[in-house]
Amino acid sequence: MKLWEKGIPTDQKIEAFTVGNDREIDIHIAKYDLLASKAHAAMLASVGLLTKEESEQLNKQLDLMLKQEQEGTFVIEADFEDVHSKIESDLVKALGDTGKKIHTARSRNDQVLVALNLYFKAELSQITEGVEKLFDTLLKLAETHKNTLLPGYTHLQVAMPSSFGLWFSAYAELLIDDLYLLKAAQKVVDQNPLGSAAGYGSSFTIDREMTTKQLQFADLKYNVIAAQLSRGKSERTVTQAVANIANTLSRFAMDICLYCSQNFGFIKFPDALTTGSSIMPHKKNPDVFELLRGKCNQLQAIPQEMIMITNNLPSGYHRDYQLLKENAIKSVEDLKVVLDIFEFSIAQVKVKDVNLDDEKYQYLFTVDAINDLVTAGIPFREAYKQIGEQVENGSFKAGNTKEHSHLGSIHNLGLDKIQAKFDKAVS
Amino acid sequence: MKLWEKGIPTDQKIEAFTVGNDREIDIHIAKYDLLASKAHAAMLASVGLLTKEESEQLNKQLDLMLKQEQEGTFVIEADFEDVHSKIESDLVKALGDTGKKIHTARSRNDQVLVALNLYFKAELSQITEGVEKLFDTLLKLAETHKNTLLPGYTHLQVAMPSSFGLWFSAYAELLIDDLYLLKAAQKVVDQNPLGSAAGYGSSFTIDREMTTKQLQFADLKYNVIAAQLSRGKSERTVTQAVANIANTLSRFAMDICLYCSQNFGFIKFPDALTTGSSIMPHKKNPDVFELLRGKCNQLQAIPQEMIMITNNLPSGYHRDYQLLKENAIKSVEDLKVVLDIFEFSIAQVKVKDVNLDDEKYQYLFTVDAINDLVTAGIPFREAYKQIGEQVENGSFKAGNTKEHSHLGSIHNLGLDKIQAKFDKAVS
Amino acid sequence: MKLWEKGIPTDQKIEAFTVGNDREIDIHIAKYDLLASKAHAAMLASVGLLTKEESEQLNKQLDLMLKQEQEGTFVIEADFEDVHSKIESDLVKALGDTGKKIHTARSRNDQVLVALNLYFKAELSQITEGVEKLFDTLLKLAETHKNTLLPGYTHLQVAMPSSFGLWFSAYAELLIDDLYLLKAAQKVVDQNPLGSAAGYGSSFTIDREMTTKQLQFADLKYNVIAAQLSRGKSERTVTQAVANIANTLSRFAMDICLYCSQNFGFIKFPDALTTGSSIMPHKKNPDVFELLRGKCNQLQAIPQEMIMITNNLPSGYHRDYQLLKENAIKSVEDLKVVLDIFEFSIAQVKVKDVNLDDEKYQYLFTVDAINDLVTAGIPFREAYKQIGEQVENGSFKAGNTKEHSHLGSIHNLGLDKIQAKFDKAVS
Amino acid sequence: MKLWEKGIPTDQKIEAFTVGNDREIDIHIAKYDLLASKAHAAMLASVGLLTKEESEQLNKQLDLMLKQEQEGTFVIEADFEDVHSKIESDLVKALGDTGKKIHTARSRNDQVLVALNLYFKAELSQITEGVEKLFDTLLKLAETHKNTLLPGYTHLQVAMPSSFGLWFSAYAELLIDDLYLLKAAQKVVDQNPLGSAAGYGSSFTIDREMTTKQLQFADLKYNVIAAQLSRGKSERTVTQAVANIANTLSRFAMDICLYCSQNFGFIKFPDALTTGSSIMPHKKNPDVFELLRGKCNQLQAIPQEMIMITNNLPSGYHRDYQLLKENAIKSVEDLKVVLDIFEFSIAQVKVKDVNLDDEKYQYLFTVDAINDLVTAGIPFREAYKQIGEQVENGSFKAGNTKEHSHLGSIHNLGLDKIQAKFDKAVS
Repeated sequence: MKLWEKGIPTDQKIEAFTVGNDREIDIHIAKYDLLASKAHAAMLASVGLLTKEESEQLNKQLDLMLKQEQEGTFVIEADFEDVHSKIESDLVKALGDTGKKIHTARSRNDQVLVALNLYFKAELSQITEGVEKLFDTLLKLAETHKNTLLPGYTHLQVAMPSSFGLWFSAYAELLIDDLYLLKAAQKVVDQNPLGSAAGYGSSFTIDREMTTKQLQFADLKYNVIAAQLSRGKSERTVTQAVANIANTLSRFAMDICLYCSQNFGFIKFPDALTTGSSIMPHKKNPDVFELLRGKCNQLQAIPQEMIMITNNLPSGYHRDYQLLKENAIKSVEDLKVVLDIFEFSIAQVKVKDVNLDDEKYQYLFTVDAINDLVTAGIPFREAYKQIGEQVENGSFKAGNTKEHSHLGSIHNLGLDKIQAKFDKAVS
Repeated sequence: MKLWEKGIPTDQKIEAFTVGNDREIDIHIAKYDLLASKAHAAMLASVGLLTKEESEQLNKQLDLMLKQEQEGTFVIEADFEDVHSKIESDLVKALGDTGKKIHTARSRNDQVLVALNLYFKAELSQITEGVEKLFDTLLKLAETHKNTLLPGYTHLQVAMPSSFGLWFSAYAELLIDDLYLLKAAQKVVDQNPLGSAAGYGSSFTIDREMTTKQLQFADLKYNVIAAQLSRGKSERTVTQAVANIANTLSRFAMDICLYCSQNFGFIKFPDALTTGSSIMPHKKNPDVFELLRGKCNQLQAIPQEMIMITNNLPSGYHRDYQLLKENAIKSVEDLKVVLDIFEFSIAQVKVKDVNLDDEKYQYLFTVDAINDLVTAGIPFREAYKQIGEQVENGSFKAGNTKEHSHLGSIHNLGLDKIQAKFDKAVS
Repeated sequence: MKLWEKGIPTDQKIEAFTVGNDREIDIHIAKYDLLASKAHAAMLASVGLLTKEESEQLNKQLDLMLKQEQEGTFVIEADFEDVHSKIESDLVKALGDTGKKIHTARSRNDQVLVALNLYFKAELSQITEGVEKLFDTLLKLAETHKNTLLPGYTHLQVAMPSSFGLWFSAYAELLIDDLYLLKAAQKVVDQNPLGSAAGYGSSFTIDREMTTKQLQFADLKYNVIAAQLSRGKSERTVTQAVANIANTLSRFAMDICLYCSQNFGFIKFPDALTTGSSIMPHKKNPDVFELLRGKCNQLQAIPQEMIMITNNLPSGYHRDYQLLKENAIKSVEDLKVVLDIFEFSIAQVKVKDVNLDDEKYQYLFTVDAINDLVTAGIPFREAYKQIGEQVENGSFKAGNTKEHSHLGSIHNLGLDKIQAKFDKAVS
Repeated sequence: MKLWEKGIPTDQKIEAFTVGNDREIDIHIAKYDLLASKAHAAMLASVGLLTKEESEQLNKQLDLMLKQEQEGTFVIEADFEDVHSKIESDLVKALGDTGKKIHTARSRNDQVLVALNLYFKAELSQITEGVEKLFDTLLKLAETHKNTLLPGYTHLQVAMPSSFGLWFSAYAELLIDDLYLLKAAQKVVDQNPLGSAAGYGSSFTIDREMTTKQLQFADLKYNVIAAQLSRGKSERTVTQAVANIANTLSRFAMDICLYCSQNFGFIKFPDALTTGSSIMPHKKNPDVFELLRGKCNQLQAIPQEMIMITNNLPSGYHRDYQLLKENAIKSVEDLKVVLDIFEFSIAQVKVKDVNLDDEKYQYLFTVDAINDLVTAGIPFREAYKQIGEQVENGSFKAGNTKEHSHLGSIHNLGLDKIQAKFDKAVS
């Protein structure tokens, strides 16, 4: 059944092509179409387009379907092209003429817009929780390992002393930046588009502020053309927010894979988190973090798809937009898994003792040696030259590790301040 | 002169390659390196690494260079590889040993990081102003043309009545979403990275909160590794904020070019804003909006470059990061021009009267006709079928335009509410 | 069952994550892993690593599975992580110790590489056929409609006369460029990687030229590290070849959607190829071509994902590569559908008569008027000015359409030459 | 001076915006516009649109400018918007009415198309030479270092023995794949678009086969609409061919930077190829290869820009296309430098002796140990288990390196076959 059936049979091949896999995808937004339909019905009654009784019947029937959805028994059968047809059809089946009134003053585009915004809003909240859990774990790891030193690298060359405390809390602090952008994405989707109908509004005197309130949107997308143009924009914004987090985690995963290499040997993971080789029996590979890295790199490619689909298209709905749903939803669902597996796995990291006296790390402390000279009154650029000559002629001897006490350095990580910044960002 | 000169001549070809066009690019951040150097010098004095007198001498000399920068006489000569070498060299030349102390407890990476964040912060503010000016112009145009109707399209097919008021204010409202993301980008760059030195901090007891205050950053990037990892992240975040605005304007420009076509004929521009053809003497092409569209599409490709350069690189500075500067700065500079030209040009748009009685627009009012039936008590889905049959058998007659009175529709644009939303976003 | 099972239970959650949806994806390459396994077994026998009898038993068993695959009864059960484990396990189950010998001198990476190359080779051939079918249809349409004129546009402004013959055959000729690149992609994948084992070869004296011959590869990927580095490169190359075709079709679809608009009204499609609206009963939207455009835009985003996954990774296999398969295979499968639906649909296009005397087309013939003056001896730039003045003061009168007789123009389409170029490209 | 000047002053700000930096960019294609103009003039004479004398005068004048171009004295003054206006203006200045005839039967779009194709053709040939030079150097390095072993990695974990011979020749062989795609890109641009005029041909009886021959194009782009649609397509194709090579080099550079790290310590470079730090006097960083990697990553982002600018635009010229030139030309110019610097630098690599007896490499030879058991008659999967148990309980002892003798492996690199494949590809 198609809402727009006009008695002319569409070629079957074409139908399969146009429907695509909407049925599978729409399961993710079924709940939100039902909630929006309830708000719409209530509003129609309030402006006199439905009787109170009709509205209550629709509400009851929609609640029934919501219960099915919650219990996992809500199914979009093969004769429906999408969730919206399915719901309207069930309403008509159950309520006759009353069901035929639910689509008054709205359009399917409208329904997709509002359902997606509600879905994104809920999902971004869940993602925020996932970020918070990972953040907490990283701060704990930083606190636990704050006294274990690591070589620090620039250009992949041994540079200056670092520590596990610095390393873990660095990625924690970067997640705060990702939260700023996530919160902004929340604002973009936390606006009610319902009432734009086919993109040019309606001659019915609908009450859009009422549905905004009932659906708990923070604001309205007032302009009805703007509402339609937010297709693509919402998906791009949300997948970018996802991609930002993925970017942070992808780089973290690269560090992890490198530090697991025998040539670094800074960390390892329990056997349950490594996988073997079909040919080399000694292998314990960090596949989990490689897959996390790979998935995060996939997630970073998705916003480009969102842009490609909508870019240079004139305003007004185009069917191309239907294709935005699939990977926008996949992006959100994948990130939730990534956050979960990342937190679960990094929590099990085993930090090794790194021997900083090893010959390859002999120049880790040149800057500290310069600083000693500076403290003794030699201008920095002079001191730099003196130590440089010692390195060049082989006479440089590393001293002990000096205290790094300024805010944000090895011996003063400022974890409380990072926590406070996070708390402010997430609130 | 290179800061790291160690007496070994680098092959000239290699030198040209490694320096690249840093000198041209660095002019944009010279001011900010000078400001950050002033803050650094004052801080060094406050923690006893410089005497008060040394600090004052450095401050005075840096102020001199700032004045040069303002007057356009600050030049990075060909024997410097970048602005940072130039400034340190001038300080040494003017102040001798005191100049050699400025680099105490900092690194060049540090300098680039802090200068870029200061630059981005200032530029994003200017971009906000550009957005505001365009927003104002669009709301004014919407108000002026609120009673002029347009055909509305879905699938590029004539759909329902729209208006110029709706069209102009749609893009205005979309800019608010872009502002949410711009404001978040501001938060990302409004953090002080200074003090991370080469990325692992320093054994000097520097006071990072003091430089944060003096440079008017809202917060610190506490963790020194996080500070370095924000290279690439800042550039990506800023260019994405730029790309979001570009996306909105690119789509707007597409509408404009289409509406200028003789086949639509909805708007035109004064001759001064059109260009001719080398072969067709009748042409008055909307090149300005095509170039705006094209530039906006370029701007949308830049974040991908930022990702490509940094992705999958382990933590710690890499020289690849030097390449981020060029297009990140170009992105910001280009958008300012785009906003300016867009506002200047759209303000001169001439709106034409569109004859909605033209045969090609005959079905614009089918939904209004359905609504009449619904008001008369026929369920929506029934009314839809009846009008559909009239269309099919050729008996459909369009009525007059109905009033569209709900919030955000043709006759109730809600411009005050859109303005209020903007004001809240920008504050 | 995992090939590398070492008695340590992997956490279930992690297992689900690492396996991903490999089982679903691997169905596409099952046939090719079986074929490659047959070649590998025969080669092992030829160099004495298997007896002739063992090789024949393996061959027979693999043939059995090939038959299952062909009949659609080959299933990768939930206890296998991928198709490779499944096949080895079945061989062991059926043949005992002989089955345990199939993995001699090869690695799973090896198997994936060779199976993917065989799959891509076969699929690119099918795609070539799809392109050929569409090309033929377009040339036929060009021939049929060669005398029907169209307005030609530059800058979306009415410019000079064009024709349906020109329009259809333009896209046909562009497909030839896409073929050049497709053929090059064929060369990239038509190389045998088998024998690289885990990426560093084997101490067994395997005969890689024998498997190359048996699997009908045009060449070997000789270097074993190069073979592994071609993961990512093959996928990128193939998805780019797909994206090139998609780019051509996406732009063609844009023309089609625009020309279907009432404001152009140049073409239409039978009702079976259009879809309606849930709210506007008069709509006959070109959804098929919008979805084709959208899908082609998605296809153009996929190569970027391939790059993102592999970029900046050092040489040697990484598990991230597993993620390349999914969208590389999807890309190929989607394009086949797109080519099929596009050809099926465009073949049904109905070309309308466009009234070039309509006022909006009045300047279509200014260049022809200039040419008349030039023929009469006036220098081109002078003639341009004269006609320009006529247009400006309203005195310009269009003459009739002139003959455009040069090669590749309206009245001399050169279809035979375009056909000859195609034939040469495809051969 | 603008070709389309019609007496109406264009606002200065708008003019600066529309001209952009075309003058700087056009210097790269000046030579090719002159060559194409010569061919066009000769053709006009052959079909009677110019007298023989006029044609000779134009030819002589164009030769003069070609000489200027060669000597570096050809300048596009600030009063021209591009190279095409400049050339026509100079012809008019020198030849009066004869100069005014050069633009007969062509359009500026036409000129840009043909000049770009000629430029790309010439540049791709130069790039092929650059690839060949690098290929030769790599094969020489492979031959020189064929007996020096390296650890091979999978998942960045120590896996199996590799060698410098394998490593250098791997990247050489990969360049052959890039050549296949480069040669295909050559075919795409080696087609003559001249004669498409504004995109719809001309009513003059021009002889396009004559200009094709004179300009030494392999073929014509017959269809005039196809010629215009190749804007964007050519740039995308060329920048993709560039990006393919960049992808190979970017990954090679990553290996190099990693192998330079003290934690690997496999290679080093002379001091002239390393750079120091402003703060750490011991640093000798591989900046050259980091910048090569970064530039190669930038180059991989450019095709996306080409797609973004043209995607979803209907056929026919749009001014957006002007923006394609800049980065398409930059891409080609940058790659030439990258190839040059890469070859110059890698030729100076110093290969270190790697101690494979180091404890961290102890499991490099497990597969060889399995192979011994297999040779002794134990089925592979059984032998795998036995060695796996030895590793697990600590009893595994590495034997000596075995001979790897199959084609493409450590002791049989097949350099002659790789050379032969290259020669075939480049021919």
